[in-house]
Amino acid sequence: MKTIHLALMGAGTVGQALLELLPTHQARFQALGLELKLARILVRDRSKPRPGVPAHLLTDEPKGFLEGADLLVEVAGGTAQAGEVVLEALARGLPVVTANKALLAERWDALREHAEAGRLHYEASVMAGTPVLGALQSLWGNQTLALHGIVNGTCSYIIQRLEEGATYAEAFAEAGALGYLEADPTLDVGGIDAAHKICVLGRLTVDPGLAWAEVQRRTRGIAHLTPQMLRQARAEGYAIRLVASLYPSPEGWVGAVRPVRLPQEHPLVQLGSGRNALVYQGHPVGSLVFAGPGAGGGVTASAVLGDIYRALSGQPGHRPLPAPAPLPAQPAPAFEEV
Amino acid sequence: MKTIHLALMGAGTVGQALLELLPTHQARFQALGLELKLARILVRDRSKPRPGVPAHLLTDEPKGFLEGADLLVEVAGGTAQAGEVVLEALARGLPVVTANKALLAERWDALREHAEAGRLHYEASVMAGTPVLGALQSLWGNQTLALHGIVNGTCSYIIQRLEEGATYAEAFAEAGALGYLEADPTLDVGGIDAAHKICVLGRLTVDPGLAWAEVQRRTRGIAHLTPQMLRQARAEGYAIRLVASLYPSPEGWVGAVRPVRLPQEHPLVQLGSGRNALVYQGHPVGSLVFAGPGAGGGVTASAVLGDIYRALSGQPGHRPLPAPAPLPAQPAPAFEEV
Repeated sequence: MKTIHLALMGAGTVGQALLELLPTHQARFQALGLELKLARILVRDRSKPRPGVPAHLLTDEPKGFLEGADLLVEVAGGTAQAGEVVLEALARGLPVVTANKALLAERWDALREHAEAGRLHYEASVMAGTPVLGALQSLWGNQTLALHGIVNGTCSYIIQRLEEGATYAEAFAEAGALGYLEADPTLDVGGIDAAHKICVLGRLTVDPGLAWAEVQRRTRGIAHLTPQMLRQARAEGYAIRLVASLYPSPEGWVGAVRPVRLPQEHPLVQLGSGRNALVYQGHPVGSLVFAGPGAGGGVTASAVLGDIYRALSGQPGHRPLPAPAPLPAQPAPAFEEV
Repeated sequence: MKTIHLALMGAGTVGQALLELLPTHQARFQALGLELKLARILVRDRSKPRPGVPAHLLTDEPKGFLEGADLLVEVAGGTAQAGEVVLEALARGLPVVTANKALLAERWDALREHAEAGRLHYEASVMAGTPVLGALQSLWGNQTLALHGIVNGTCSYIIQRLEEGATYAEAFAEAGALGYLEADPTLDVGGIDAAHKICVLGRLTVDPGLAWAEVQRRTRGIAHLTPQMLRQARAEGYAIRLVASLYPSPEGWVGAVRPVRLPQEHPLVQLGSGRNALVYQGHPVGSLVFAGPGAGGGVTASAVLGDIYRALSGQPGHRPLPAPAPLPAQPAPAFEEV
C-alpha cells in the first residue's frame, strides 16, 4: 500500500464536498494499492466556520504548504494566490488537479508547458461533473468544425426567468438570493465565466495558443436582455441563450461568448434548460451532444475526484493540441447575435 | 521523428475509412514527433476488390503478420481469428486498438489482464465515434447507480418503421436492403450486438468481472414487436425502444438488453432517434446524457484513430474497474419490459 499525501487548497463548497466524498472512495483507492492521506488544507481565513473540515489541518500560510505533498488539489478559485501555489507545485513536479477555469484561461502562458507535459488535470473546470474534457480528448481522430455550449447555469436561470416575464433586475436579484451568483457577478452575467470555459475547451480542441485576451474581447453578457426580447424570439420559433462557441474565421480559430437566437428544437435549447450542454461538430464523426449538471459542490467534487484517480493511476492530464487544428474549408453557419 | 509501424487487421468499411483518414492526420502525428507507416494489412480474402487499399500490403496469412509492428489495429470483427491475432499482439507487448465489441464481450477471460494493464484501447467498440468510453473513464469520482443506452441503430431503424406502420417483416427487409444488417442479423435484431456493448460498458463502470453468459441470458430482441404494440404505447404517452441497461440487483450488478416502454419525454427517446444515446446516473453527479452517431465507416474510424493517438501518446488504454462498484442502497426504478 502506497500512501499519497494530498495538499488541498480551498475548503469552500467544492472543497467541503470533496472532503465528504473522499472517505466513501477509500476502498476503491485501496484496490489500486493506494492510501490517500490529507496532508494540509490551505485557506484564506482559518477562523471561518467549516463543518466537517479537520481544523488541525488548516493553514493560511502558503509557505511550506506543499512540503511532503504528492499531489495538489486546487479548488480555491481566483488567479493570484491559486496561480502561485499551482505553479510552485508544478515546478516541484507534482501533478495538479484543479477546477479553476479562471486560472487556466488567464494564466495559460505560465501553465501551458505543464499542461503539455501532462501534469495538469482539470476535468472539473468546464461543466463541473459532466465529463466533456474526457470525451473531447477521445475525439482527436476528427477534424473539429465547431463547438457550441451552454456552460453557465446562472445565466440560463436568469434567461429562463426573463422568459417567464420577470424583469432583468428581478431575475438578477432572485439569482443572488438563491446563491447562484459569484462574489463578482460580472463573472456570470458578463459572460466571463463562460469565456473562461470556452478558452479551456478551445486549447484542447482547436488551438493550443488560443489567447484569453482575444476570447475576452469577443465576450458579451446578458444584462441587456428584456422579457420583450425573449417573448418576441419565442413567437418567431426561437429561444435566446448565452452560447459559448469555437468556430473558424479567415484569421484563425475564434472563441466567443454572446447571447444568440437558436431554433427552439436546437439540442442546446432542448437539453440546456436547467443544465449545461455542449454540441461538438467534427469530421467524420458528425454532431455529438453532451449534457449534464454544470455546477454544485458534490457535482464538481466528483470530477475533481475523478481527476485524482487519473493522476494517481499514471494517466497524463488534459493535454492541449500540439498545434492549431486545420481550419475547415467551409465556414460554420453563424447564429444570430442579440 | 519516430516511425511507428502499424499492423492493420481488417479492410472492410471501417478499415477502408481509416486508410482514407490517416493521410489527413499526418501533420498532426508529425507535430507529436511520429511518422505512421502501414506495415501490413491482414484480410480473409486477398482477391476481394478494395478501392484505395494498397494491394502490396495485403496478406491473408496471420503468421508473420505482426513481425516488426509497433501497434495492432483490429477492425476485422469476429471472435476467432481476431482473438488469436489480438492475443498474440498483446503477448508481444504491443498496444492494441480494436473496435470489436464481440471479441471484448465474449473473450474477456483472456483479454482482461491486458485491459487492466492498459494495453487495450477500444473507444470505437461502443457507439462508434461517440466518445462514451472517454467520458465514462472520467466518472470514477462517482458511485454508479445505473446506465441505460440505445446502442444499436439497426433496431432503432426497424422500430421507427414499425411506428410508421410497417410490419416487422417489411421493416426487416428494408433494413437489409439499406445495408444496415450484420451478416448474421440476429446480432442486431436479437439484441446480441447491444448486449456485447453493455458488457463492455459494464466492466468499465460497475463490475470488471461482468460475465458475458449472464448478460446474454438477459438479452431479448425485437422480432416480436408489432405496429399495434408501438401504436398503443404511443397512445399512452410511451415509446418502445430496445434499451441496454446496467442496474443493481440483490445478487449484484446486472447487464440486460430488452425492449421497454419509455415515457416519450425520456432523453433516450428524445435523443436516440436516428442515433445512439446513453444516460448515466451516478452519485453525486446526477444524470448525464451523451448522444451521437453509433455506426458508419468514417464515424467508427474516427474513434479508432483517436485511440491510435491515445496509444502513441503514452495514455493507458480503457482499464476496467479494479473491483466491483458498491451496490447502491436504493434499487433503480425499473422500466416496463415488452
